[in-house]
Amino acid sequence: MIDHTHDPVARTWLAPDSEDTHAFALQTLPYGAFSLPGHDNVRRIGVGIAGHILDLAAAQQLGLVDDLDGALRPALRVPHLNALLALTPAQWSALRHRLFALFVDDDSGWKGARDVIRQCLVPMAAAHMHLPFDVGDYTDFYASIHHATNVGTMLRPEQPLLPNYRHVPIGYHGRASSIVVSGTPVRRPSGQVLPQGQTAPRFGPSQRLDYELEVGLVIGGENALGEPVPIGRALDRVFGVVLLNDWSARDIQAWEYQPLGPFLAKSFATTISAWVVPLAALAPRRVAVVRAASDPPPLPYLLDAADQSSGALDLDIEVRLSSTRMRELGEPPHLVSRSNMRDLYWTPAQLVAHHTSNGCNLRPGDLLGTGTVSGPQPESRGCLLERTWRGTDPITLPTGETRRFLEDGDRVEFGAAVGLTCCGEIVPARDLTDHGRMPGMAPGAPD
Amino acid sequence: MIDHTHDPVARTWLAPDSEDTHAFALQTLPYGAFSLPGHDNVRRIGVGIAGHILDLAAAQQLGLVDDLDGALRPALRVPHLNALLALTPAQWSALRHRLFALFVDDDSGWKGARDVIRQCLVPMAAAHMHLPFDVGDYTDFYASIHHATNVGTMLRPEQPLLPNYRHVPIGYHGRASSIVVSGTPVRRPSGQVLPQGQTAPRFGPSQRLDYELEVGLVIGGENALGEPVPIGRALDRVFGVVLLNDWSARDIQAWEYQPLGPFLAKSFATTISAWVVPLAALAPRRVAVVRAASDPPPLPYLLDAADQSSGALDLDIEVRLSSTRMRELGEPPHLVSRSNMRDLYWTPAQLVAHHTSNGCNLRPGDLLGTGTVSGPQPESRGCLLERTWRGTDPITLPTGETRRFLEDGDRVEFGAAVGLTCCGEIVPARDLTDHGRMPGMAPGAPD
Repeated sequence: MIDHTHDPVARTWLAPDSEDTHAFALQTLPYGAFSLPGHDNVRRIGVGIAGHILDLAAAQQLGLVDDLDGALRPALRVPHLNALLALTPAQWSALRHRLFALFVDDDSGWKGARDVIRQCLVPMAAAHMHLPFDVGDYTDFYASIHHATNVGTMLRPEQPLLPNYRHVPIGYHGRASSIVVSGTPVRRPSGQVLPQGQTAPRFGPSQRLDYELEVGLVIGGENALGEPVPIGRALDRVFGVVLLNDWSARDIQAWEYQPLGPFLAKSFATTISAWVVPLAALAPRRVAVVRAASDPPPLPYLLDAADQSSGALDLDIEVRLSSTRMRELGEPPHLVSRSNMRDLYWTPAQLVAHHTSNGCNLRPGDLLGTGTVSGPQPESRGCLLERTWRGTDPITLPTGETRRFLEDGDRVEFGAAVGLTCCGEIVPARDLTDHGRMPGMAPGAPD
Repeated sequence: MIDHTHDPVARTWLAPDSEDTHAFALQTLPYGAFSLPGHDNVRRIGVGIAGHILDLAAAQQLGLVDDLDGALRPALRVPHLNALLALTPAQWSALRHRLFALFVDDDSGWKGARDVIRQCLVPMAAAHMHLPFDVGDYTDFYASIHHATNVGTMLRPEQPLLPNYRHVPIGYHGRASSIVVSGTPVRRPSGQVLPQGQTAPRFGPSQRLDYELEVGLVIGGENALGEPVPIGRALDRVFGVVLLNDWSARDIQAWEYQPLGPFLAKSFATTISAWVVPLAALAPRRVAVVRAASDPPPLPYLLDAADQSSGALDLDIEVRLSSTRMRELGEPPHLVSRSNMRDLYWTPAQLVAHHTSNGCNLRPGDLLGTGTVSGPQPESRGCLLERTWRGTDPITLPTGETRRFLEDGDRVEFGAAVGLTCCGEIVPARDLTDHGRMPGMAPGAPD
């Protein structure tokens, strides 16, 4: 069956609202949650196209989806994507095809509805974006063998890659409460760090603040606890993808992470893009898995012929950085790295199948990060720890400033080929002299 | 101020509904969520006392809390504790004092309301208990220095305790979706394990299934992202405690945990008690922190005079185990270990202060596990890994059966001095030959 929503020559009749070519093509149709100025508590879900947002609650109210599955309609009135995520791939597909039909420039029956469609549009530039979904559990994987090898080389030059890496998708549980939407300022965390050459730690602002360039898989549907998802059905559980910045405080991480893994070094903030690109929109980017001849074959529960032949995603992603000084001088953000999701060692389907292989239940709104997406080249390393090789090889910005790690005022912007962006700006650490005085709380002993 | 809710000689006028002395004293008044047979979807929150449950929605409806803070009343109609958790310590305290007044056997004005109170009671034996609150983020600490030392001795005899242990409360993020209420069967997980002497893993049922005896702190209130909770106010964020079993598959854990910590070895199930004992009920159990003279002083953000003098909790907890055979023979559960929460290296306040020290936001319904609570004696080791010393020193059950790790049909029951219980029975692993056929899903390739 030909899926018209991938037709590369299809165009929309809708005039773009902005010159921003990243404001989403007809073939992308991403989902997000927005509000309008002065109505911050009135949130809606919408679809991005050509600099506009189609208000899905309005579209539902004005009859644009009346003939679709009855379960879809109430989901469009919920102010976040979770109700939509709880539906099935068939329902997601039906909605996507309807949205494509509404906006494609052809002579279908929907041509007569364009005035109604226009009533449901909001200029993207006027909208305030919120977290697109309530994040349930957040898991972060470590799926880039290049990233794992680089980090391992710094820590264990004699054994860069641990013996388990090529067999088991390494992952850990992350913090969901501190996931924020693109554009939210990120406060530099304080924490315990062990100063070089000392045996006792001090507490203070992190001096080695980093980003991590990742893609997040947004989970839809639910498997019962105890019931694994077989790899052949695993992609049915991926609604779409976001860009994800797993901000990391490397000095806090180095001190705390043994033996149970990263904790406060990561839990101060994680940023995701405001828009979720449906997996269906990435179908033309599905490519074969490439493994080295020396790599062991995946165990049967991670092996699926269709996944091996088309389970990797050819998605270019990049990091740009601007300092306060650069922005004062009107300099555009500086390209720091560019990598591609196809270089990951594990596919999205393998991550889902592995995650549930012990019976763990994934729920709608769960988020699976890929881990830092690094490629084989130095310019494709997805975090500063790797890019500056632990700070020993600083990058130089157009202003002549150098960076080993992030400075206050730095703005980090991720971009992806489909038009996703994910950005955050570092604000200074909290004044520690104020540590004992919380806003709205009188000082005093506990009850 | 004298808090009458701790008066050890106070008694309730209510006749106990059962002979079970663990069915909660007047001084305990724990909270839970229940339904009645045939009405599984009609859930209420309630308070346990003497084998009865006070239906809080009914109590609110019949006017027993009419004069309390207006924000309390709607919270009592919500079918889980989260709305109550979102309130303040002052509101929690007001409710507790009212509940005590309703049930204490004295001549107060509430004596005349006993017929109304009786209308709000349900026999505990008839109720079906549910998860008491929707768990947000679940964090698991590693706060027992005895546990950390024992495990470290097995893994690194030359350095049992890592250099960071006495400085930084070690913790990691856990999986919230697979947290289940006491009594829920626990399916033996399958996963990748590395057979002894081999270099490639196999996938199959865990052969080293274990429990971990823990206490969970139930978080109330919310701090804004970026705003740490000072240690002097940290206990205001602890609504109460549960018993927690952090089921662990040691063979899966050994293979997967480097370098990012435990993942699928833990995420197949975590059991918590159906009842949450308010921290206020544990006030008589608050004791001074005892540290060895050689232990470093906590960094200032973890140091508070009141916490040092009364921040530890003297709470006995224990593990009992019964095999299928024991139950067939009518044998009572066998006491395997008994330990005490006061032996933890870090206090609850220190765990909260540390968790938020990087600005991480804790939200109502978050759960903080202490980690396995082991004491200094062999009989106080809180998991089989330690108790049987990695299986080298099996325990013998009254039937003559031995245990290195858990067998199918084993039932593990935790108990605490205040009457909390937390139990789960191991059911056999899922048949792996059925792996590709999920209920309700036709086999086939992904779309």
